[in-house]
Amino acid sequence: MVEQRDPSVRHLLESLGGTVRPARVVGLTGAPGTGKSTLADSLVALLRSRDQAVAVIAVDPNSPFTGGAILGDRIRMQRHALDPKVYIRSMGARGHMGGLSVATREAIRLMGAFGFDWVLLETVGVGQSELEVAAIADTTLVVLTPGQGDGVQMIKAGIMEIADVFVVNKADLPGAQKTVQEVRSMLSMAALLPPRSAGKAGDGAKTWRPPIVTAIALKGEGTREVMDAVEKHQQFQKSSGEAGQRAEARLKDEAADLVGEWARAEARRLLDTEPALSSRLLRDRVPYAAAEEILTRQGRELVPEAARSRDP
Amino acid sequence: MVEQRDPSVRHLLESLGGTVRPARVVGLTGAPGTGKSTLADSLVALLRSRDQAVAVIAVDPNSPFTGGAILGDRIRMQRHALDPKVYIRSMGARGHMGGLSVATREAIRLMGAFGFDWVLLETVGVGQSELEVAAIADTTLVVLTPGQGDGVQMIKAGIMEIADVFVVNKADLPGAQKTVQEVRSMLSMAALLPPRSAGKAGDGAKTWRPPIVTAIALKGEGTREVMDAVEKHQQFQKSSGEAGQRAEARLKDEAADLVGEWARAEARRLLDTEPALSSRLLRDRVPYAAAEEILTRQGRELVPEAARSRDP
Repeated sequence: MVEQRDPSVRHLLESLGGTVRPARVVGLTGAPGTGKSTLADSLVALLRSRDQAVAVIAVDPNSPFTGGAILGDRIRMQRHALDPKVYIRSMGARGHMGGLSVATREAIRLMGAFGFDWVLLETVGVGQSELEVAAIADTTLVVLTPGQGDGVQMIKAGIMEIADVFVVNKADLPGAQKTVQEVRSMLSMAALLPPRSAGKAGDGAKTWRPPIVTAIALKGEGTREVMDAVEKHQQFQKSSGEAGQRAEARLKDEAADLVGEWARAEARRLLDTEPALSSRLLRDRVPYAAAEEILTRQGRELVPEAARSRDP
Repeated sequence: MVEQRDPSVRHLLESLGGTVRPARVVGLTGAPGTGKSTLADSLVALLRSRDQAVAVIAVDPNSPFTGGAILGDRIRMQRHALDPKVYIRSMGARGHMGGLSVATREAIRLMGAFGFDWVLLETVGVGQSELEVAAIADTTLVVLTPGQGDGVQMIKAGIMEIADVFVVNKADLPGAQKTVQEVRSMLSMAALLPPRSAGKAGDGAKTWRPPIVTAIALKGEGTREVMDAVEKHQQFQKSSGEAGQRAEARLKDEAADLVGEWARAEARRLLDTEPALSSRLLRDRVPYAAAEEILTRQGRELVPEAARSRDP
């Protein structure tokens, strides 16, 4: 239902209560080939050894073109395939522009309702999904590898703002310490700047300094240290009040995205069913007046029927 | 203004009149490394030799992470940098989830108003942008290379539906004829199936069979043949009535996307400025009731102020 963007999922999720959310949502992001899936796999193994139930959601805005990659991810995590306390799913955005973040959030709620303690949210490919995943996750891991030369580029591109923990994976490759130092010096420079946002740093409040953890995920080395960093970040968020601020920001993002998704879907329906609207559009040859007319409608016409509240 | 999603661009575009659209919008899509930029570059050279003004827009939904690639594209097209009848621009979607397709359409209108005869719309990276570009372009070129082994995968992934012309680039590499044959046999199989959509094939109407053109874009070979195929497709669309159907579908897409973009932006504003809304959200812990309340507002509250019509 969530993947097909069935609007009636609202009633399901409301009946489950709004408070279901897994203990922890951890985002894994980084360039292709950095070993995100392998790291996720080793985190799953660690969490299972602690009897935690784990869901892995691979967020893939590129699904029409990366079917192979999705399959690859699943195969890599094969050793968990028969474990009922592990759930692995790729979510694509095909044909649902902008709907992926709402769908991901809804899937996380369901994972919570199903009793999963942890959700690992892995980005597939590069791009926008990194920012979306970071906006959804409690803790975002940015995975780097030595010698990729993308350290500086990533930091330029604003990855600093989304990293809660840096993982230098494949730390047995040459140049691992250099990569660690690069990230460290970037962090030192960033510390001299004013806090980037009130929501993240606060005025004179405690500031989270993203730790840099080295790992060799393929051998399971460093997995425990990564998890320790995640738990420290969790404690920091609780004690600093950041957890509440992030939760509020997340809910606002989700509500705004949902408004956009609903309004677009209903606009599409109205344009296909009301000849007056489409002839206006063809006459104008620009979409603005028609869009304004749609948004000016009265009542709940812009809420998909299956999603409307049952007791208005 | 377009890239910053300034809502008042509406008034500019309406004052320009809705009929400004360049003669031809050609989409270039395909996996990374297939030579899309090089092909675009050689098409620019050909069109300039015919005294046509050409704009190249590189659509990049991944901009936060591919700053380097954008620069690379520009550098590759350097030989046109001083030609006032060539305009090259990368458009990113950073922070404007879902807004890229509206922005691209607006940019195309502006290119038309500025007197450009052609717009080449190039996708950067893989993913969703292919589908978006195909929905916007008059003619979509799918660029393949020999031995990538992505023939079958691409067709599985639904690329058949968006290709108006197949270009097998780097045709001097081994396996070029095999790739041509693969695509040809896929097309033959597809021809046995019922038409995929009324808008594209019609009932018993003439059907467009995507030609397969080989090229070595780096040497400019095949460029003329690619352009011939584009022109044939243009003539087909005119004579079959498909041009009108596509124009209508495009306008509806654009209007629906605009409704979504406006509604999301205004929802965000309301959630940030109305304490009653945000406290409801925090109480509910699910976004549905707040989203419904926002969409149920009266009047033009969901149209950004700067975009509202001036004579209501």
